[in-house]
Amino acid sequence: MQGDQRAILKAAAAYPARVRERAPRVHCLTNHAAAGITANMLLAIGAIPSLTDHPDELPDFVGGADALMINLGTPDQGRVDAVANAIGIARRAGVPWVLDPVMCDRGAARLAWSHTCLSEQPDLVRLNEQEAAALSLDVTNALGQPGIIALTGRRDRVMAYERPTVLLGNGDPLMGKVTAIGCGLSAVAAAFMAVSEDRFMGTMAGLLAFGVAGEIAGRQAAGPGSFPAALLDALHNLDAEIVIEKGRLE
Amino acid sequence: MQGDQRAILKAAAAYPARVRERAPRVHCLTNHAAAGITANMLLAIGAIPSLTDHPDELPDFVGGADALMINLGTPDQGRVDAVANAIGIARRAGVPWVLDPVMCDRGAARLAWSHTCLSEQPDLVRLNEQEAAALSLDVTNALGQPGIIALTGRRDRVMAYERPTVLLGNGDPLMGKVTAIGCGLSAVAAAFMAVSEDRFMGTMAGLLAFGVAGEIAGRQAAGPGSFPAALLDALHNLDAEIVIEKGRLE
Amino acid sequence: MQGDQRAILKAAAAYPARVRERAPRVHCLTNHAAAGITANMLLAIGAIPSLTDHPDELPDFVGGADALMINLGTPDQGRVDAVANAIGIARRAGVPWVLDPVMCDRGAARLAWSHTCLSEQPDLVRLNEQEAAALSLDVTNALGQPGIIALTGRRDRVMAYERPTVLLGNGDPLMGKVTAIGCGLSAVAAAFMAVSEDRFMGTMAGLLAFGVAGEIAGRQAAGPGSFPAALLDALHNLDAEIVIEKGRLE
Repeated sequence: MQGDQRAILKAAAAYPARVRERAPRVHCLTNHAAAGITANMLLAIGAIPSLTDHPDELPDFVGGADALMINLGTPDQGRVDAVANAIGIARRAGVPWVLDPVMCDRGAARLAWSHTCLSEQPDLVRLNEQEAAALSLDVTNALGQPGIIALTGRRDRVMAYERPTVLLGNGDPLMGKVTAIGCGLSAVAAAFMAVSEDRFMGTMAGLLAFGVAGEIAGRQAAGPGSFPAALLDALHNLDAEIVIEKGRLE
Repeated sequence: MQGDQRAILKAAAAYPARVRERAPRVHCLTNHAAAGITANMLLAIGAIPSLTDHPDELPDFVGGADALMINLGTPDQGRVDAVANAIGIARRAGVPWVLDPVMCDRGAARLAWSHTCLSEQPDLVRLNEQEAAALSLDVTNALGQPGIIALTGRRDRVMAYERPTVLLGNGDPLMGKVTAIGCGLSAVAAAFMAVSEDRFMGTMAGLLAFGVAGEIAGRQAAGPGSFPAALLDALHNLDAEIVIEKGRLE
Repeated sequence: MQGDQRAILKAAAAYPARVRERAPRVHCLTNHAAAGITANMLLAIGAIPSLTDHPDELPDFVGGADALMINLGTPDQGRVDAVANAIGIARRAGVPWVLDPVMCDRGAARLAWSHTCLSEQPDLVRLNEQEAAALSLDVTNALGQPGIIALTGRRDRVMAYERPTVLLGNGDPLMGKVTAIGCGLSAVAAAFMAVSEDRFMGTMAGLLAFGVAGEIAGRQAAGPGSFPAALLDALHNLDAEIVIEKGRLE
């Protein structure tokens, strides 16, 4: 590890305590299967989740949030309207927001909707390789500065215009065998971004914390069933020392 | 502990077996994140959960239930209509019902909706300190007799007009680090109320059982991830002896 | 065990590896409480779940699936329309589909809707005794050939017109104390059917694998809280040897 990387790792390791201290409110519009675990991931790191998509409630809940996370899974018409509505509120109120275009590679309607949301310039897009390919997403054209892309998979990459790409090497294969782990990561990244002056750094710290917790959980779990509880426990128990000891910037 | 309290504790300790024996049907209109764990809490104590909010189904499911639990989280228009509809069915059929005005302190629309529901005179309102403050809820004015208020937090208080307030001292801090624990408690309280001639006593017994189970779970869990499974196991394995041994009336 | 049964058991034991290898896509329209655990069961056996019910997305998601699973719980009007829509797409595309008429014994509207869905000739109906009784379901009249009925409970029965009924003896009582276990089984059966030339055999292999995993989980779990994680772990770790060792055809 380079000296630069050691400095970045040390800076990132301070974030979990900062999230706990500031307890950011993160409003999430997410799919049905992800709602419970996403809320629990946010609580585990010390953030405060909320989930409503009712038009009368969005101004208070989104406008009063420290970050907004939009996941495009299991939409109905009310949710499609709520997403547009919530993004508008967040932009007007200066609330940073994250887009998770889940499964946009699986259907034309989802892909078109993802492009519509992308045109609203999210502060962060969190997605996997297939989703990025479907969107032809590229750091140099898809997002205006200071938009960030977190491309997650075996390794995670955090990218932004005119910033050196960061490669993160933690994680566990079981993370791909449980639903909504990626959706939850998007919410965790939103919480870390919410307590950060430098959103690129906040995103990176969130992904690093999540990967380290996933790696710890993977060693404890007997399979994908016992993995989520172990992941939440590890997120809750994470501290700077563990992140510095186990974190791998590549 | 006073002799009176010892008698109350002993009476309350008989309830978990009664719930298992009578297997009350509890219909729940609750938020997306809470649906699964709420159903699992009811099953764990031996009750039978149902969750539909379709207008064609409410007459059969609510009218045939032994208790109704209304939680105001993640509403859409169909749910708002269903709540009004279900409350009406419950009142006409004499089905006791519980209101959980979750996060009514977080937005004007939720607060107004909570007041509307309160005006329908729930048999029990289960909420936390911030929610009670937002509603200016007070046992002497908000609920007509025999309405009950269960105010939960570090300590739980069960209150009703012209009844001495009961203070319950069990629980665990992890209960506040997992989503939908309070929502599930509202459903558990509904199940206990359903098997009780004296609803105040049933509510108190439900909160006591839940607090004792939470305390047992808190000692077993390594964090908020492993807590819910331990809580469900403890609820399922609870008996009168454990409640008498560990229960704390204050 | 007869020689015939030994041959069937051996054939069925090859299915878990086949599901993992082919990774079938299973689209599920299911109730809110079941969404997460159903997706996790499919991932645990190596299948790929999806859950959307948006009308614009159904053609791609259902048409591109290897099997469709329809569970009638927690419907709203959008879901009722989506079910009809999805069944039509599946039938036109030759995608096998499973019907789970959950709680059709609890209300007239649910029962009528179940009959409507049954008239669309599902490849498999998965239900319990009370639901089958409410539907007057009988292998000789309710389903056209090659429709299959999987009647689950203490013992599971797999039945189809002019096929000898198979009785399966694995399982654990805790399977009835956790929500959405039956709903998840319907999705697992869909995945097994998707990789099978002989759908009766595929269904039987799916139920057998699920029952064996449930039995393993029941021995590990301390109650209904720890059961689901143990079940998912067991499904994930299942192989032909375990199925042959523990499987009981009766």
